[in-house]
Amino acid sequence: MTDLATVMQGLGRAAAGARSALARSSTATRNAALAAAARQLRDSRTAILAANAEDMAAARARGLSGAMLDRLKLDDSRIESMARGIEDIIALPDPLGSVSAEWTRPNGLVIQRVRVPLGVIGIIYESRPNVTADAGALCLKSGNPVILRGGSESRHSSSAIHACLVAGLREAGLPEGAIQLVPTTDRAAVGMMLAGLDNHINVIVPRGGRSLVERVQAEARVPVIGHLEGLCHVYVDRDADPDMANSIVVNAKLRRTGICGAAETLLVDSGCAPGVLPALLAALAEGGCELRGDALAQQADARVKPAAEADWRTEYLDAIISVRVVEGVAGAIAHIAQYGSGHTESIVTANAATAERFLAEVDSAIVLHNASTQFADGGEFGMGAEIGISTDRFHARGPVGVEQLTSYKYVVRGSGQTRPG
Amino acid sequence: MTDLATVMQGLGRAAAGARSALARSSTATRNAALAAAARQLRDSRTAILAANAEDMAAARARGLSGAMLDRLKLDDSRIESMARGIEDIIALPDPLGSVSAEWTRPNGLVIQRVRVPLGVIGIIYESRPNVTADAGALCLKSGNPVILRGGSESRHSSSAIHACLVAGLREAGLPEGAIQLVPTTDRAAVGMMLAGLDNHINVIVPRGGRSLVERVQAEARVPVIGHLEGLCHVYVDRDADPDMANSIVVNAKLRRTGICGAAETLLVDSGCAPGVLPALLAALAEGGCELRGDALAQQADARVKPAAEADWRTEYLDAIISVRVVEGVAGAIAHIAQYGSGHTESIVTANAATAERFLAEVDSAIVLHNASTQFADGGEFGMGAEIGISTDRFHARGPVGVEQLTSYKYVVRGSGQTRPG
Repeated sequence: MTDLATVMQGLGRAAAGARSALARSSTATRNAALAAAARQLRDSRTAILAANAEDMAAARARGLSGAMLDRLKLDDSRIESMARGIEDIIALPDPLGSVSAEWTRPNGLVIQRVRVPLGVIGIIYESRPNVTADAGALCLKSGNPVILRGGSESRHSSSAIHACLVAGLREAGLPEGAIQLVPTTDRAAVGMMLAGLDNHINVIVPRGGRSLVERVQAEARVPVIGHLEGLCHVYVDRDADPDMANSIVVNAKLRRTGICGAAETLLVDSGCAPGVLPALLAALAEGGCELRGDALAQQADARVKPAAEADWRTEYLDAIISVRVVEGVAGAIAHIAQYGSGHTESIVTANAATAERFLAEVDSAIVLHNASTQFADGGEFGMGAEIGISTDRFHARGPVGVEQLTSYKYVVRGSGQTRPG
Repeated sequence: MTDLATVMQGLGRAAAGARSALARSSTATRNAALAAAARQLRDSRTAILAANAEDMAAARARGLSGAMLDRLKLDDSRIESMARGIEDIIALPDPLGSVSAEWTRPNGLVIQRVRVPLGVIGIIYESRPNVTADAGALCLKSGNPVILRGGSESRHSSSAIHACLVAGLREAGLPEGAIQLVPTTDRAAVGMMLAGLDNHINVIVPRGGRSLVERVQAEARVPVIGHLEGLCHVYVDRDADPDMANSIVVNAKLRRTGICGAAETLLVDSGCAPGVLPALLAALAEGGCELRGDALAQQADARVKPAAEADWRTEYLDAIISVRVVEGVAGAIAHIAQYGSGHTESIVTANAATAERFLAEVDSAIVLHNASTQFADGGEFGMGAEIGISTDRFHARGPVGVEQLTSYKYVVRGSGQTRPG
């Protein structure tokens, strides 16, 4: 019986050992592995659903909530989604080897900045088994070996999906160390990954709820890509088109309430509040949204409950919104600076100067003018797929796609130049 | 008497407080501050030299070595260098607000990736007082408040230089919190910076010897930009022009032996060693270089001492070189993978395919074909100035100039778009 440390060190070494094969692999080879994996997912429908049934039975027996069971569940349509997601990733341009900058020095040296893989990526996730396929595929596309650690409740499903990815690797002649799944539910495995697995892991990506992300950010001894909160704001300015404001606000809050780009706070300019607030609040309430607001918001609609200070700081991930009246764009900028999480903020206005000021001064990963915060998504950005959204300032900010999962090196071509002096 | 924690927290708060003024400052304002600082440096020659004389006297009394005294010493020429260095930085394009990518989505959203400051930078350095000016200017240019912690032996000099920078800030109307110097030599101040100063510091840059960098990398709880070692290689391939090989090897080792881009190991292809090795070794020896090599190198020149395993792993920063004969470019790539530090490696060859293989497969921050490793420098790269060279894969790799001291945000302009589904 091998102990945990030995198992984990083995994963680390195998992942590190796969780095150079992946770094040198051709676009065609990596795409072939992905195509084979997608085929295998479709061909293994029955086995995957059987494994998922095991996980679902255990989850029900443990009394997991409806929402959690829904995150866990796989069906034909979700398996097809996984396969199509992998095919979308195949269609993405290969970031590896691409030249992001090139210039010639006075002495004739030609310098290029060329994209290379980031290294071994550790993905720590909960519940949703499709992350096994999505994250595995993104890492492979960008030439990074990956160590996947899914939630224990989805372990049979993840294992069945992982087997399809490995079949893809084998078919393309790539090392199996390129995509590994932690084979134990022992919680101590996570701590070992966060410590960097003997320097074999280069970066950690947590995908899950707040307590997972908090733990990872607090304990990780390697860089972490991701975000803790998506406390997004929509600011309706005095020069906003009221109909545009309505449709953007309702979409931003209610299209899907559980995603990080969902708006959690509505800020309305005092200069237009009397005129636009009632319609905004009514639209939200009729959409099933609970309203919490300041005194002016309460006056505008009887359904508005009093907002406490904590409400400005709360990411509800639900059909609840905080509403505050602010003094113009300056007030909105100040409120966001104080309460925001640096994720995504939107201004609705027809005043170009006001918009430009908001866009320039709001310090978040994504700032939008006259568009919904729900566009905070790698797919919507045209990246094809994302491994998550980062609110950090280092390395990657905003949606993290294959390009952000790369590093670079400088390639310098000369004709014998030596440096003077 | 204010205790250290209070002092340091004050620095952190003032730095964080300066972030938005710097982020919003115009190119002209930051350049005006830099120009005023450069003027002030020249005008304060006498005061700076007097402060330096104090530091030098104390250093001599403590018995510091000649090399250390030389690093510490300021004179008219070095002060002029500092001022000119700042003027070079003024001449650099402003990275802030520059658009690094722009695209339009099918739904009409126009997305831009725009450069923004990184945040508060903590610079921890030793001996050389000019870092106060260089690093201070780079951070200001890129909109980042900086907390400078210099070596205690240069504290009077650094303080005099810092006063000039602050005069520049005042003249341009920028907050003094933009460039602060830790006002105490208490060693515990460094630990507080490494812990992040209550989350006020976003990134740490160590500038100094190995033990400083090791400590910073081991203890820092915030991202670190820099490198531990510059164990650079020159590989002379069988298809190398012998004269080119000679001039590149001698320049790479001996132009300046104490810099990170100095070559520490010479690898020679077995396919040409008998022919080229004697001349290479003679040129190095005549240049004053001590030679340590494997059996074949020893055979080629009597001055070659036997190399031990440790010599392949040693960054001498001196006129000493390790010499090894390898089996072609594959042997060179393997040796570098095993012993290199990921900094800078060079291949000398006239064979394009061999060169491309080396450039593709060697995983270092900088790889050169037919050029000296001594070009590993921000100035030589055309960045104007650098804060250091990074061997990490995250955020910045290679020379770190003003552009690398920035983050980015996405600015999305729409016309009312809401996300479907």
